[in-house]
Amino acid sequence: MDRVRLYEELNGYFFEDLSVGMSAAFAKTITEADIVLFAGVTGDMNPVHVNQEFAAETIFKSRIAHGMLTASLISTVLGTKLPGPGCIYLSQTLKFLAPVRAGDTVVAQAEIIELVPQRKRMIARTTAYVGDVVVCEGEAMMKVRSRAELPKA
Amino acid sequence: MDRVRLYEELNGYFFEDLSVGMSAAFAKTITEADIVLFAGVTGDMNPVHVNQEFAAETIFKSRIAHGMLTASLISTVLGTKLPGPGCIYLSQTLKFLAPVRAGDTVVAQAEIIELVPQRKRMIARTTAYVGDVVVCEGEAMMKVRSRAELPKA
Amino acid sequence: MDRVRLYEELNGYFFEDLSVGMSAAFAKTITEADIVLFAGVTGDMNPVHVNQEFAAETIFKSRIAHGMLTASLISTVLGTKLPGPGCIYLSQTLKFLAPVRAGDTVVAQAEIIELVPQRKRMIARTTAYVGDVVVCEGEAMMKVRSRAELPKA
Amino acid sequence: MDRVRLYEELNGYFFEDLSVGMSAAFAKTITEADIVLFAGVTGDMNPVHVNQEFAAETIFKSRIAHGMLTASLISTVLGTKLPGPGCIYLSQTLKFLAPVRAGDTVVAQAEIIELVPQRKRMIARTTAYVGDVVVCEGEAMMKVRSRAELPKA
Repeated sequence: MDRVRLYEELNGYFFEDLSVGMSAAFAKTITEADIVLFAGVTGDMNPVHVNQEFAAETIFKSRIAHGMLTASLISTVLGTKLPGPGCIYLSQTLKFLAPVRAGDTVVAQAEIIELVPQRKRMIARTTAYVGDVVVCEGEAMMKVRSRAELPKA
Repeated sequence: MDRVRLYEELNGYFFEDLSVGMSAAFAKTITEADIVLFAGVTGDMNPVHVNQEFAAETIFKSRIAHGMLTASLISTVLGTKLPGPGCIYLSQTLKFLAPVRAGDTVVAQAEIIELVPQRKRMIARTTAYVGDVVVCEGEAMMKVRSRAELPKA
Repeated sequence: MDRVRLYEELNGYFFEDLSVGMSAAFAKTITEADIVLFAGVTGDMNPVHVNQEFAAETIFKSRIAHGMLTASLISTVLGTKLPGPGCIYLSQTLKFLAPVRAGDTVVAQAEIIELVPQRKRMIARTTAYVGDVVVCEGEAMMKVRSRAELPKA
Repeated sequence: MDRVRLYEELNGYFFEDLSVGMSAAFAKTITEADIVLFAGVTGDMNPVHVNQEFAAETIFKSRIAHGMLTASLISTVLGTKLPGPGCIYLSQTLKFLAPVRAGDTVVAQAEIIELVPQRKRMIARTTAYVGDVVVCEGEAMMKVRSRAELPKA
């Protein structure tokens, strides 16, 4: 396969293809297995995530997913859809507004709110929902490749 | 087993035990397995994390770990050490400053920079290092339980 | 970051900090995902753990967690809390007294019953509970670092 | 399929089929992924298992597998081969004699050293090797079903 064409196919949006108001979403049901694996990979064994009896005594009343697991779905929509592969993740702000539990389907959405052509920066409002409830929100800044930066043959 | 004593053993710091300047660290070597599992759990299949040939053509020159995987180690030190179990994660800011690769040992550190007694808020500077390089930094805000909020028998 | 301070932060108790009667606990809800992953990692595909129809015909009446999974939580409390990082696990005895099922929250507790200063040995009674039922018990012997053994700058 | 025949096929040895001196083995290469997953399932994030820099400063000089992961392979040979499915694990003693690292192939062996017909107990010497090095040894006691205890149609 032609390598230049392959990289163009694998790459996401180029900076010149973006405009304010574009949005994209990634959604996933959070399972108990996801929480177990996320705890293992990150080392975060906070009992509110892995101990049902402890969690029952908190204001959450049962185990909740790691906030960073929800936040990571925001990274997923940015890194795989908008702008997608080829971008560089520069910064993210996060407010954790409501708990997510095993069985919840999280929809992570990114919407472009500003573009800075000189430095090829894209700023997005990032919001994660479970149903109509906003569980996490913030802003992301990405550096986005222009078409001229594609690897040559 | 005595439940009140158990919950006290499982709980982390109470608000009244905290003071500005306290710090804690969690450190972990990021393995290829961590990156694969993190990609699976979050759905973030950005080729810069899972496609060596694609990653070789980026400025990173090889696969890198997800920024959110590094950021999640910050959540680990907060949720398991300072303030530890019993806290509620309210917000986090993140700047991604340098790439992390399989084999790198990430040290995530949290240091208390402000305490707000009226609302039991703890604000921490959060920094992740690989060796002497700061790979991610920001601030976290947590709500911390007071000893009076422990579940009763 | 100061390496000596980091290693002191990451290390658990030093031998000179221990006394008979000290105890610590780690607790975790055992999920179906834990049992599946434990089976995969260890190769222990005994149908009593992974085959509901087979397990229903045993005295357990349904699938049970691996005894060694419960026992491993004892290792967790020893290796991460008392004495914590820096120790060496020398031996363990285990009696499996009652089954653990997905959904059960296991509390693993270690209590120091003897200290041998000449050889820096710590002997602990180790007990795992589900509610008030002792599901596994035995004794552990650890070698514990003294403060003088910390790595130097 | 005939259920009685199925259960007979799934069951391991019956007590009346065992004799002193019989032995069996299970062997598996321990990978970095196994260690990551075992840490996640058990919560055992002792840095000697997950932090290469910390481990380098210990007498082990690099990350080692959890002792209980090695020990669990002993459970595997007992629960799947000798006596195999249908048995009940009553007790185990373990001495951890040498470290196991990612890449090592652990051979876990069980050899029957005593049979107690009145109570259908089997006692086995259990030994885990890496090459010629004994890494873990001890004794196991199992309760083994007799053919008369098989579920009826």
